[in-house]
Amino acid sequence: MTVPDPLPALAAQTIELPSWAFANSGTRFKVFGQPGVPRDPYEKLADAAQVHRYTGVAPRVSLHIPWDLVDDYADLRRHAAELGVSIGAINSNVFQDDDYMLGSLCNPDPRVRRKALDHHLRCIEIMRETGSQDLKVWLADGLNYPGQDDLRARQERLAEGLAEIYAALGPEHRLILEYKFFEPAFYATDIPDWGTSLLHCLALGERAMVVLDTGHHAPGTNIEFIVAQLLRVGRLGAFDFNSRFYADDDLMVGAADPFQLFRIMNEIVAADALRPGSGVNFMLDQCHNIEPKIPAQIRSVMNVQEATAKALLVDRDALRAAQTAGDVLRANAVLMDAYNTDVRPLLAELRTGQGLDPDPVAAYARSGYGERVAAERVGGVQAGWGA
Amino acid sequence: MTVPDPLPALAAQTIELPSWAFANSGTRFKVFGQPGVPRDPYEKLADAAQVHRYTGVAPRVSLHIPWDLVDDYADLRRHAAELGVSIGAINSNVFQDDDYMLGSLCNPDPRVRRKALDHHLRCIEIMRETGSQDLKVWLADGLNYPGQDDLRARQERLAEGLAEIYAALGPEHRLILEYKFFEPAFYATDIPDWGTSLLHCLALGERAMVVLDTGHHAPGTNIEFIVAQLLRVGRLGAFDFNSRFYADDDLMVGAADPFQLFRIMNEIVAADALRPGSGVNFMLDQCHNIEPKIPAQIRSVMNVQEATAKALLVDRDALRAAQTAGDVLRANAVLMDAYNTDVRPLLAELRTGQGLDPDPVAAYARSGYGERVAAERVGGVQAGWGA
Amino acid sequence: MTVPDPLPALAAQTIELPSWAFANSGTRFKVFGQPGVPRDPYEKLADAAQVHRYTGVAPRVSLHIPWDLVDDYADLRRHAAELGVSIGAINSNVFQDDDYMLGSLCNPDPRVRRKALDHHLRCIEIMRETGSQDLKVWLADGLNYPGQDDLRARQERLAEGLAEIYAALGPEHRLILEYKFFEPAFYATDIPDWGTSLLHCLALGERAMVVLDTGHHAPGTNIEFIVAQLLRVGRLGAFDFNSRFYADDDLMVGAADPFQLFRIMNEIVAADALRPGSGVNFMLDQCHNIEPKIPAQIRSVMNVQEATAKALLVDRDALRAAQTAGDVLRANAVLMDAYNTDVRPLLAELRTGQGLDPDPVAAYARSGYGERVAAERVGGVQAGWGA
Amino acid sequence: MTVPDPLPALAAQTIELPSWAFANSGTRFKVFGQPGVPRDPYEKLADAAQVHRYTGVAPRVSLHIPWDLVDDYADLRRHAAELGVSIGAINSNVFQDDDYMLGSLCNPDPRVRRKALDHHLRCIEIMRETGSQDLKVWLADGLNYPGQDDLRARQERLAEGLAEIYAALGPEHRLILEYKFFEPAFYATDIPDWGTSLLHCLALGERAMVVLDTGHHAPGTNIEFIVAQLLRVGRLGAFDFNSRFYADDDLMVGAADPFQLFRIMNEIVAADALRPGSGVNFMLDQCHNIEPKIPAQIRSVMNVQEATAKALLVDRDALRAAQTAGDVLRANAVLMDAYNTDVRPLLAELRTGQGLDPDPVAAYARSGYGERVAAERVGGVQAGWGA
Repeated sequence: MTVPDPLPALAAQTIELPSWAFANSGTRFKVFGQPGVPRDPYEKLADAAQVHRYTGVAPRVSLHIPWDLVDDYADLRRHAAELGVSIGAINSNVFQDDDYMLGSLCNPDPRVRRKALDHHLRCIEIMRETGSQDLKVWLADGLNYPGQDDLRARQERLAEGLAEIYAALGPEHRLILEYKFFEPAFYATDIPDWGTSLLHCLALGERAMVVLDTGHHAPGTNIEFIVAQLLRVGRLGAFDFNSRFYADDDLMVGAADPFQLFRIMNEIVAADALRPGSGVNFMLDQCHNIEPKIPAQIRSVMNVQEATAKALLVDRDALRAAQTAGDVLRANAVLMDAYNTDVRPLLAELRTGQGLDPDPVAAYARSGYGERVAAERVGGVQAGWGA
Repeated sequence: MTVPDPLPALAAQTIELPSWAFANSGTRFKVFGQPGVPRDPYEKLADAAQVHRYTGVAPRVSLHIPWDLVDDYADLRRHAAELGVSIGAINSNVFQDDDYMLGSLCNPDPRVRRKALDHHLRCIEIMRETGSQDLKVWLADGLNYPGQDDLRARQERLAEGLAEIYAALGPEHRLILEYKFFEPAFYATDIPDWGTSLLHCLALGERAMVVLDTGHHAPGTNIEFIVAQLLRVGRLGAFDFNSRFYADDDLMVGAADPFQLFRIMNEIVAADALRPGSGVNFMLDQCHNIEPKIPAQIRSVMNVQEATAKALLVDRDALRAAQTAGDVLRANAVLMDAYNTDVRPLLAELRTGQGLDPDPVAAYARSGYGERVAAERVGGVQAGWGA
Repeated sequence: MTVPDPLPALAAQTIELPSWAFANSGTRFKVFGQPGVPRDPYEKLADAAQVHRYTGVAPRVSLHIPWDLVDDYADLRRHAAELGVSIGAINSNVFQDDDYMLGSLCNPDPRVRRKALDHHLRCIEIMRETGSQDLKVWLADGLNYPGQDDLRARQERLAEGLAEIYAALGPEHRLILEYKFFEPAFYATDIPDWGTSLLHCLALGERAMVVLDTGHHAPGTNIEFIVAQLLRVGRLGAFDFNSRFYADDDLMVGAADPFQLFRIMNEIVAADALRPGSGVNFMLDQCHNIEPKIPAQIRSVMNVQEATAKALLVDRDALRAAQTAGDVLRANAVLMDAYNTDVRPLLAELRTGQGLDPDPVAAYARSGYGERVAAERVGGVQAGWGA
Repeated sequence: MTVPDPLPALAAQTIELPSWAFANSGTRFKVFGQPGVPRDPYEKLADAAQVHRYTGVAPRVSLHIPWDLVDDYADLRRHAAELGVSIGAINSNVFQDDDYMLGSLCNPDPRVRRKALDHHLRCIEIMRETGSQDLKVWLADGLNYPGQDDLRARQERLAEGLAEIYAALGPEHRLILEYKFFEPAFYATDIPDWGTSLLHCLALGERAMVVLDTGHHAPGTNIEFIVAQLLRVGRLGAFDFNSRFYADDDLMVGAADPFQLFRIMNEIVAADALRPGSGVNFMLDQCHNIEPKIPAQIRSVMNVQEATAKALLVDRDALRAAQTAGDVLRANAVLMDAYNTDVRPLLAELRTGQGLDPDPVAAYARSGYGERVAAERVGGVQAGWGA
């Protein structure tokens, strides 16, 4: 057995949290309100800091523009620092205005394209003000009906828009480009798959990378293959972690298919992409429609840690030997041995060694934070996903 | 060639419109507002009547409770009659309150189940007040996470609730029960398939029937098989027509897969279920997120008519002969011959014969109705799907 | 913690093996031959007995007619008994003759339907000769092209054929009826879903039950829901266990989605359907295209045992309490706690207590059986799946 | 109305036929034999020539190596010329030996990789001997179980192998590289999507192009988007046309979703890629499991022609105007107007103008060819797909 001690790698791992996961969210049918939900970006950061406090591995928070617009980003950055966290990726979002009904960067109307571009330029300013390194671009652009617009013309508009945005970035910045199979568009999406995202990244330059959201694929897609392929060509910039049974369900990562999450982390570990500095940003992107947000984020972070721990326990020499010998059952068994291991004691040990409670969910529950903010945060308007 | 004249059957066909199709709608990301959208049920009926005016085959409008709550249903009924339409199915909807976060009739909390039941009893009163014959039940009930609730216990609660509702119906009423593969629930839906809907209908009694929404199936499902099976056992109560490429996209019926719509109508015609009195209610259920609502409904009605006309043109003697002989290519060719026929001239003839414009879309556009309501309907709050 | 000792239930569990899993198998592209593969039903039983020898929970073997045709079934039954196993379900198979190109019981040609019926009657004789209790009916019937045959007429032929078969069964027999989403038919399958299978079973009588093959569903189908529903109405007759990523891949059960297998076994345990006498026959149905057959079957049996052990470890009181309280995260966590437990030590204890080696795969490998049969079984024709 | 006369483009269109479509084929369950099926490549070419004879647009035949191995390719080429056809793409196939159980170019065993490479080099010789221009590479390589082999290592072996093959091509040759979602591998496929195929083509050089098989995608994939994208980057080398409802069903093209085929051809026409010399080779790749082969090929060719004709009838000025104006319904209507046109009279006119019978299926049936070969081709072994 040649498995190295997994604790150092687990201690170095970091996971980025999305500010919007702490806001109310829902489906097109209903957004359910929950008590204590933040009313502004400052409160979102406070909630995110709770997740970091109990898990120790979530020191960054992604912002969502315009949902997280504030007057003074230097102040927000200080607020984050006081809470022990920092600002992560800036998500430019151009789907929330009536102007974007037929698209943003791909819109047939040049006025709307200009507006969408300007929004991205404003996001880059916010990156400078917050110290963020990643501009994350996800576009809701697409078509609902065949014939509605010209598929190729939209690709050209997209390429043009991305080029202008990329040119505005500083040398310390990256553009990370997300793809999505469908939704909100129902016939064609302008960046529907990793191939399209990668083609645009290759055209842009070395600091353009693909974002893989685990919920953005066709049924049956082998996601770990895409992970391996993007790592192979050096263009996996980040994950948006969540889980799904059907479409882009945005459930807690690891909740729907924990074995898939393990297989993904196995490719990461095998390619030595877990280490800080590998260029892969591990982010969550979830909607806690019916469960309380903070403990759901804690649980999600723990699920990623458990999958990572199992991936670190794979006996890679034994695996390689079985693979080389063409021993299908043995190779599969080596992988499953790691997956079937109960790593919860190992992670409890990690946390105890870091001065944390071995059970983050219980520790958070005992803290009374949830009850406190539910009592305090009355008045104002709760932040809402999609609103 | 032994095909009977399709015109009488086409002249007798009726399609029911959904009041909510005229309101604003969208995805969880954004509901786009459109000018002239109705602000109350009276204006929705007025818009629906426009569709009937230009197509001649859409004389009924389904209501949605609570979205279509008014003080005086006798008055609403009169308003409909003056517009030349009548009230169709009453859709009870129990997903729009925070109380229903964990379900309605299947909720683990008996207080919430009681509230949901009382809402259904109120809907039955509205049926009496409006002359509606069909109580349409679609439940958003389901689970987002494995373990969240007991799957079997929820079926028992469902059976109990439906029994109480069914008992409250008059002998002139039907309960039509819709199933849906997923959404808004992401792990399990309490009525996910036709088998579950049918089991509950069989338990309830003869006036309980299945509703088939063409967007509520797993990828690849052969919908016309389900149509044929439900017709065979006498339990196809209604269609919710729309079309989809991915999930429950709610696009215009016939827009995504016109050949599928033809195959569905072919089963209807083959089983003589097109005729009035067959017990099948042909309804639309769509969301016009980015296109204007009234012309989109007109187009949808026309798409159903075209598919029906093609189904009526199938040479059934030739088809049966080829099927009996095991002549695969010939049997398929007989079907395709009907599908490949351009039936637009036939439908133009139908309309002209009824004193209608042969081109309903153009006639509506010329009428100036859209511009007029856009100008008139200022102030107030536009009705919004999901709001 | 109120979980009862899982060992008695695990000791009482039995899993039925398919004779055809020991034969060569493959895809339409290629059947790869493996050394030592059986050349007749006697050798298949010998191999199956090896699986029982090392796992202790696989005492029955399903036969496949005509692949397992022999001259003297009393002799085959004796042979099985000497090996320590017995004959399980008899699988009637009517897809292997050119006559069945357009179907068997649903064929438009009455001569072919008669031939298919006679084959089933012969299978019932074999049940009497072997002591088998279950006639398992899976039909390859379906259509490749729209229009090819009449969907409803085929259902009537099917109902008629099944009724004649059911009438020929003895009171000690059951007819278990399998459904399948698609393949080998590509447009419509005559029993595509559990609803269709159940409708026919209800029409036949109390000893007609549904067979659920875990690989026979549309993408995204919630299989444990179907398990729960069929248990609720008392019609879950048997499982065909295997696993899949895409279509009916027939991989080792638990290999593609071990969490799904756990959720299925969780419904079984929750409904007390694991106990002998519950009426549910737990069978494997797999194709070991590229891995050695006997160890693949051993591994599959172990995978079912592990999922069962985890399901037995669910703290049902805690689960019910969380469900009743609407505590989504806690209820999910109770389920996941059981799933995340490493049950391999528990199963090793079970085996040691039964005088078995705690590691069945290693024990089989050490036995030299595989090498021995590879050396001995030269000459003759290897049995081949699909041939 | 600004649509140019579609007849010249239709007259210039060519479709390539696959030699294997004339052989017996089936599923893993059963290959049904049909009377008169060819026994060698010479007879396959004779049958293919019948399709060309009655349609006038199918002048090339793809060969399949090793299924179409002959002693003297110069002789086969002469035979083709005498029949009025020529040799199209050479399909190298490396899945039919036991050696390839764990892959060909991606196999962990260098001996097997060498063997697979040598097979490709032999195929390139055959290209020289037959005058073929396209080496079509589709690999069955993949994994059935997680862990079975190293995903990235396999990509490297693949890149290496393809480079050696590409280097052996002449300047008049192209390597066209096909991708496939799944089957025969069930966990991971080494070239599963267009992105992977394109990455390898980009690495190889300008004469490496992607092959798009219409049956090789995940459920719901928007195929015309991929067509548009590959045309945009100049790498769409060829189509393998067929149709499917579920997996890679290999039904007659246009049989399952004629509207999809139209949308694909619409992208082709819009990008001016229909014209000879565009670099896109329009090939069929189908399995006629239950229908007679020659008329099924005729029908398939006609289906492609009909979709092409409809695409040529799209009023592109009107479409562009509606798209630019953001008129969703109008743009969709322009497209649908072309689709809803009955183009059979137009194609009858095309054929009559070329001295052909306007109804190729009827003309072939009247010719008696099918009956003649059924009578003549007795003795010998019928060619079988996958055998």
